[in-house]
Amino acid sequence: MDKKILEKASGAKKAAIKVAALSADIRKKALLAIAQALNTQKDKIFAANEADIKAAEAANLDKPLLKRLLFNDSKLSEVIAGLEALAKMEDLLGKVQMSTELDVGLDLYRISCPIGVIAIIFESRPDALVQISSLCLKSANAVLLKGGSEAKNTNRILVEIIRDASTASGLPEGWISLMETRDDVSEMLSLDKYIDLIIPRGSNSFVKYIMDNSNIPVLGHADGICHVFVDESADIDKAIPVCVDAKTQYVAVCNAMETLLVHEKIAGEFLPLLKSAMDQKNVRLLGCCETRKYIQIDEAKDADWDTEYLDYILSIKVVKGLDEAVEHINTHGSGHTDVILTENKESADMFVSLVDSAGVYINASSRFADGFVYGFGAEVGISTSKIHARGPVGIEGLLTYKYVLKGDYNYIEPYKTGEKKFTHKKTDKKEM
Amino acid sequence: MDKKILEKASGAKKAAIKVAALSADIRKKALLAIAQALNTQKDKIFAANEADIKAAEAANLDKPLLKRLLFNDSKLSEVIAGLEALAKMEDLLGKVQMSTELDVGLDLYRISCPIGVIAIIFESRPDALVQISSLCLKSANAVLLKGGSEAKNTNRILVEIIRDASTASGLPEGWISLMETRDDVSEMLSLDKYIDLIIPRGSNSFVKYIMDNSNIPVLGHADGICHVFVDESADIDKAIPVCVDAKTQYVAVCNAMETLLVHEKIAGEFLPLLKSAMDQKNVRLLGCCETRKYIQIDEAKDADWDTEYLDYILSIKVVKGLDEAVEHINTHGSGHTDVILTENKESADMFVSLVDSAGVYINASSRFADGFVYGFGAEVGISTSKIHARGPVGIEGLLTYKYVLKGDYNYIEPYKTGEKKFTHKKTDKKEM
Repeated sequence: MDKKILEKASGAKKAAIKVAALSADIRKKALLAIAQALNTQKDKIFAANEADIKAAEAANLDKPLLKRLLFNDSKLSEVIAGLEALAKMEDLLGKVQMSTELDVGLDLYRISCPIGVIAIIFESRPDALVQISSLCLKSANAVLLKGGSEAKNTNRILVEIIRDASTASGLPEGWISLMETRDDVSEMLSLDKYIDLIIPRGSNSFVKYIMDNSNIPVLGHADGICHVFVDESADIDKAIPVCVDAKTQYVAVCNAMETLLVHEKIAGEFLPLLKSAMDQKNVRLLGCCETRKYIQIDEAKDADWDTEYLDYILSIKVVKGLDEAVEHINTHGSGHTDVILTENKESADMFVSLVDSAGVYINASSRFADGFVYGFGAEVGISTSKIHARGPVGIEGLLTYKYVLKGDYNYIEPYKTGEKKFTHKKTDKKEM
Repeated sequence: MDKKILEKASGAKKAAIKVAALSADIRKKALLAIAQALNTQKDKIFAANEADIKAAEAANLDKPLLKRLLFNDSKLSEVIAGLEALAKMEDLLGKVQMSTELDVGLDLYRISCPIGVIAIIFESRPDALVQISSLCLKSANAVLLKGGSEAKNTNRILVEIIRDASTASGLPEGWISLMETRDDVSEMLSLDKYIDLIIPRGSNSFVKYIMDNSNIPVLGHADGICHVFVDESADIDKAIPVCVDAKTQYVAVCNAMETLLVHEKIAGEFLPLLKSAMDQKNVRLLGCCETRKYIQIDEAKDADWDTEYLDYILSIKVVKGLDEAVEHINTHGSGHTDVILTENKESADMFVSLVDSAGVYINASSRFADGFVYGFGAEVGISTSKIHARGPVGIEGLLTYKYVLKGDYNYIEPYKTGEKKFTHKKTDKKEM
């Protein structure tokens, strides 16, 4: 585990080529072998985890972090179940996505294939390491991992077990490596020759730092400033619990509501009811001038509209209508997930068309924005980028494609002179 | 045309939101209106073009450039035919790509939508301006254009005509703008708040400069170092004309062959025949030691394997077999388009699996790598990036998607407590 990052990255690049050429069957067997090895060697994992937990306690790390750090029998069962489910899932590699006859005997195919080398930086949870590396294996990508330093012993033993079990099943050496320090990460940012995609999961400032300091494409999100817009036609009784859920069901996540927009025609009736519901959850409310005419709360400053609180705080703005709501969301939002609550179909449709976010919801809490909830089986992150993958990203986001052209020693000259003509017939073949 | 870039970019962002919400019918009518306006005002265009041509002649610009700069009746007919074809093409916006019932009455949809604001930097050909902006209009994106400065008069009048005809058809002001100088481009690179994607077409160093100096995703390619590998089982008589086509049909393009790899078992027979064919086209050959045992040519230096000549020059290397060929391509290639000539199906399959390029061809010239040839109707460029769009990029590459969730004021809490369960039923709906 003490190879230089450059070696690890170039090794991953070499391995990636070989992984891409492995059969679905080998990758499936490797996933099951990893599940088995984790179970057989669980005592080693638990011992390493105990060391991490003790060090974290000694360093006075806070309770929620300690909880995320824990890797016990129940976490082990979860990751093993996850590996077995993934092994069973349909293989998405080598699928013919498109086929066209360019001319008789000259056929073009678009075939799904892995991206190559993916670097993933994740939080303290060691179970995430297993989940992420198994997603990469399923999608035939090589992976460089960087977990939280407080989980370093657990992460080391997990990577060791995953590496040994998978290489014994036919995976090439070097397809999985662990980066251990922030310096490793900084060094990695310049290795665009070897690394095809970075998926950073962590604090906003850290993700932003990665985005600003690398030429490697980054898939993820810095902020999650999600909005709920309560339209004039919303059913108020039903809207209140949705707002409470969006704000308080779990405040520390990127899909929690940070700003509530309320149509002026409904504000007088809605806001007092909202306040009493939010008071019960101890949410601190901040409002614009107009909001504060209806409920007694502190003033929201300009900066509030651009703030991801990740806390029991909510900023509220009264808007003249749909247009102002959309304008506010597109200006101050982060393109993550935004909600309209309305009984008016036309307003719902306009909101969907005009709001430029990965998730646009009609009458549902923003908290649904999640790969598991979407039915993807697993997620590597949520993307607010508008290219490649957007929203929660599952295996599909770890794939790209290549064009394969099969001919009989065809050359272009006769098509340029007009001697031959392309037929461009869509053939919809399922196999090459 | 003298607005600051910041204004143009923020104006494009605002316009993009509106363009995304326009009906397919309005965009179609706008395309036809542009075709008509170009025809009606052709004298103005030809006059502007004449001024550009005169200036270019006075500045002693070379013949090929003058030819590309020319915008005459035949070019006009071509762009009008292109606009009409594009208007007729199926609209790809708002398509349901995926639909899942998360629970009864809670439906998730993935819907295609435009990316937003696209900045395209293109070469001197003014007809490319019409083609690119019409592709953006068809895909409901706003566009910032930068053409060659030698075409500035033609470009200005073209943008004026396109802008006026399209806004009269219902497009919002600001959806199309022209950048005029390299300073404009430099300034643009930092406007990631407003610009979603840059597509640079131009010299390698320029594209590389853009990639290295912007946080905005870039779609394109710097180098096009394409290889042909002549396997031991290749049909030599058929292989020679493919190699000649790949190298000489048009040397100045990104999909021309730059390096030829020859299997050692076939080198003795193949190389002398190749040399005599290439000699007829005045191609300068450079070879590795092994190559020079069979034909008398200059030595290829290490740097040659990484060089895109864009000229009548070809580097040749004799390899031990498929593995060495693949290794060479993945190390020195640019991930653009690489070819195997072989009669062996197994070798062909391995080549396709192992070569990490946007185009992997079996028994066909690399010169087929082109959006028109692929049947995309038009292309905005060729991408060697592995995320988003790869290879020749047509309208599909200018689209992204958003997730739309339609519920009845659903919130997540009961799914977290286990009171409710997700059904995750694939519904394959065609409409929301």
